[in-house]
Amino acid sequence: MNGGIGDRTAIVGIGATEFSKDSGRSELRLAVECIKAALDDCGLTPADVTGLAGFSMDTNLEIEVANNLGIPELTFFSRIEYGGGAGCGGVAQAALAVAGGAADVVVCYRALNERSGHRFGADISLQPVSGPMMALMAYGAPCGLMTAGQFAAMYASRYLHQYGRTTDDFGRVSVTFREHAANNPNAFFRDKPITLDDHRNSRLIAEPLRMLDCCQESDGGVALVITSAERAREMPRRPALIRAAAQGAATPQGAMTSFYRDDIATLPESGVVARKLYGSSGLGPKDIDAAIIYDHFTPYVLGQLEEFGFCGRGEAGDFVADGHLGLGGSLPTNTNGGQLGEAYIHGMNGIAEAVRLLRGESCNQVADIANIVVTSGAAVPTSGLILAAP
Amino acid sequence: MNGGIGDRTAIVGIGATEFSKDSGRSELRLAVECIKAALDDCGLTPADVTGLAGFSMDTNLEIEVANNLGIPELTFFSRIEYGGGAGCGGVAQAALAVAGGAADVVVCYRALNERSGHRFGADISLQPVSGPMMALMAYGAPCGLMTAGQFAAMYASRYLHQYGRTTDDFGRVSVTFREHAANNPNAFFRDKPITLDDHRNSRLIAEPLRMLDCCQESDGGVALVITSAERAREMPRRPALIRAAAQGAATPQGAMTSFYRDDIATLPESGVVARKLYGSSGLGPKDIDAAIIYDHFTPYVLGQLEEFGFCGRGEAGDFVADGHLGLGGSLPTNTNGGQLGEAYIHGMNGIAEAVRLLRGESCNQVADIANIVVTSGAAVPTSGLILAAP
Repeated sequence: MNGGIGDRTAIVGIGATEFSKDSGRSELRLAVECIKAALDDCGLTPADVTGLAGFSMDTNLEIEVANNLGIPELTFFSRIEYGGGAGCGGVAQAALAVAGGAADVVVCYRALNERSGHRFGADISLQPVSGPMMALMAYGAPCGLMTAGQFAAMYASRYLHQYGRTTDDFGRVSVTFREHAANNPNAFFRDKPITLDDHRNSRLIAEPLRMLDCCQESDGGVALVITSAERAREMPRRPALIRAAAQGAATPQGAMTSFYRDDIATLPESGVVARKLYGSSGLGPKDIDAAIIYDHFTPYVLGQLEEFGFCGRGEAGDFVADGHLGLGGSLPTNTNGGQLGEAYIHGMNGIAEAVRLLRGESCNQVADIANIVVTSGAAVPTSGLILAAP
Repeated sequence: MNGGIGDRTAIVGIGATEFSKDSGRSELRLAVECIKAALDDCGLTPADVTGLAGFSMDTNLEIEVANNLGIPELTFFSRIEYGGGAGCGGVAQAALAVAGGAADVVVCYRALNERSGHRFGADISLQPVSGPMMALMAYGAPCGLMTAGQFAAMYASRYLHQYGRTTDDFGRVSVTFREHAANNPNAFFRDKPITLDDHRNSRLIAEPLRMLDCCQESDGGVALVITSAERAREMPRRPALIRAAAQGAATPQGAMTSFYRDDIATLPESGVVARKLYGSSGLGPKDIDAAIIYDHFTPYVLGQLEEFGFCGRGEAGDFVADGHLGLGGSLPTNTNGGQLGEAYIHGMNGIAEAVRLLRGESCNQVADIANIVVTSGAAVPTSGLILAAP
């Protein structure tokens, strides 16, 4: 943000429910639980909260959350469209709100019964109308594109063709993150690593994507507490400074695959975010010690690594094969197991993992972490953060 | 915003379509037309725009607007729930984005075929599902409360009872704004003033509300261009400085009438906004030279005048009867005719009128305007602005 808000705000609290396939309770209850946990984490109470920000897709109205938590009043509330693209954007807007004096403490949350309730990975004809976002997917329906996975398959096919790669590149992403998840007691796939053969043999979902290329469908909630860096210094836990925060969309913009672009195997919206993050922080890919890369579908992990300059275009497959994303690699990535391994909470669990890495509390802790790149849903209008140690 | 963004940003361009009951074209086209007009107004092009902000209820995705206008990329996009409560909030968030370096030029827009298309003033059982906001209204349905007007009638009835007032207090609001609209060539009710007897004789919609207490249902679009005060100085038109901007919600918060409050005849969410606006600007009611007060239903104009301290609680009826809202009064209000007289564009046309007043270009121009209060939809989570002459 042109240096405007760099290091002026921080994530000071994180909280989550358990991650499951059937929470057995309402999305509102999940929201309240994870927010309460995040406030407890930093020693604040609902009375301290004056802002709530997050996802247009979240069914929990800010005022219902406030009513049920006992937040007395709100002076900032904001939502962002485009599903998983919103996560880091909510944090970005919280940072703007705190830096600009609109609110002192802002909570970002996402709570969903995406597996036991409304499965938005399913055929769009099975989904309730959910606002303007659905219209984007509806454009594909007459062509037989009915699910997010089918849309993603178009990008994936073109990527393989254009760079002469194989689906093993996708598989190695999954193997890496599932290895991380295996160590994570909160991951749905704890103690369940997979092999590249498991990936090769998993069933086709939408060619070339296999089951093990697709993130989980999960029930759960994650919340983050943002306040000023100044106030963070008085708090019990080590803050994660918001060094840079950005949203990005690139015209002509579609969802999952942007069909009207000259090159559909790129992710220019992620490029917009990367340029903004690096430009405002003065950092570059070489300065980044770890990453949380949004992994709804494995091919997009490759594309994001390229857009963020961690490797050249078409080279991400080799970058992953060389072990860079592993715990001993140059860019340990999705140390929580990602959405392939931990849970699919629209990327919010990844932001929480970045905070844990900066606190030195990850289940897969890596030494000497100063700057972490975090991304949100790729191939839609998206967002990103650089979080930093104080 | 605690002085954080005071006078650092400005509304530099305004644009609108015609206001009608049947636009004959899509809401996307209305959005593109009004944004183009607003950019023309300040000498910018779509290539200058990097942010879009506004209403969750708007059916026009930011990226569709960008695609159709030729905006190359976006680095800020934000939405706010709660219908008409979002208007000034979008401007507030645009101001935060510009002040914080997230975007250089942000456009706020609202485009709707609310009369020829989806009439959200109608029975909720006739409405398409439109996200979490509908759930709020749905709570009332089992009690027979099916329309916004019926919800509003609960507040209105209690207000009359509590303060011993009559519906003539409501009628005088309508008469005043229709008098202003009569002079406005762009108003749907141009040349059509009404009398208090017209109000008394208009048909009951939901007791005690009559037809002439309810704003219009309109088709149309309005857009506003926000950039830094510094950049504004190089622009052709006189900027409207954003001196203060705020959102507000107050627990327990409902919509139209907040039934779980001890006193349902107050609008504490407007009080939150007022305190924030005055607190961050150092201004008070005596410093305000004109006002744009959200007039979806006349009783809420009274409540807002009280919450903003222009008169005491229960005294707004007399304040209006004494002529304060008229062109010769102490607080000329809704000089465009408001949503009762000009059009119902979710309050965005009122923000544009405030800019015209500061430029000296209103059809009902008033001399010596330095500071204007603008409010958004009352009785829901809302927002407000103090706009100021440079």
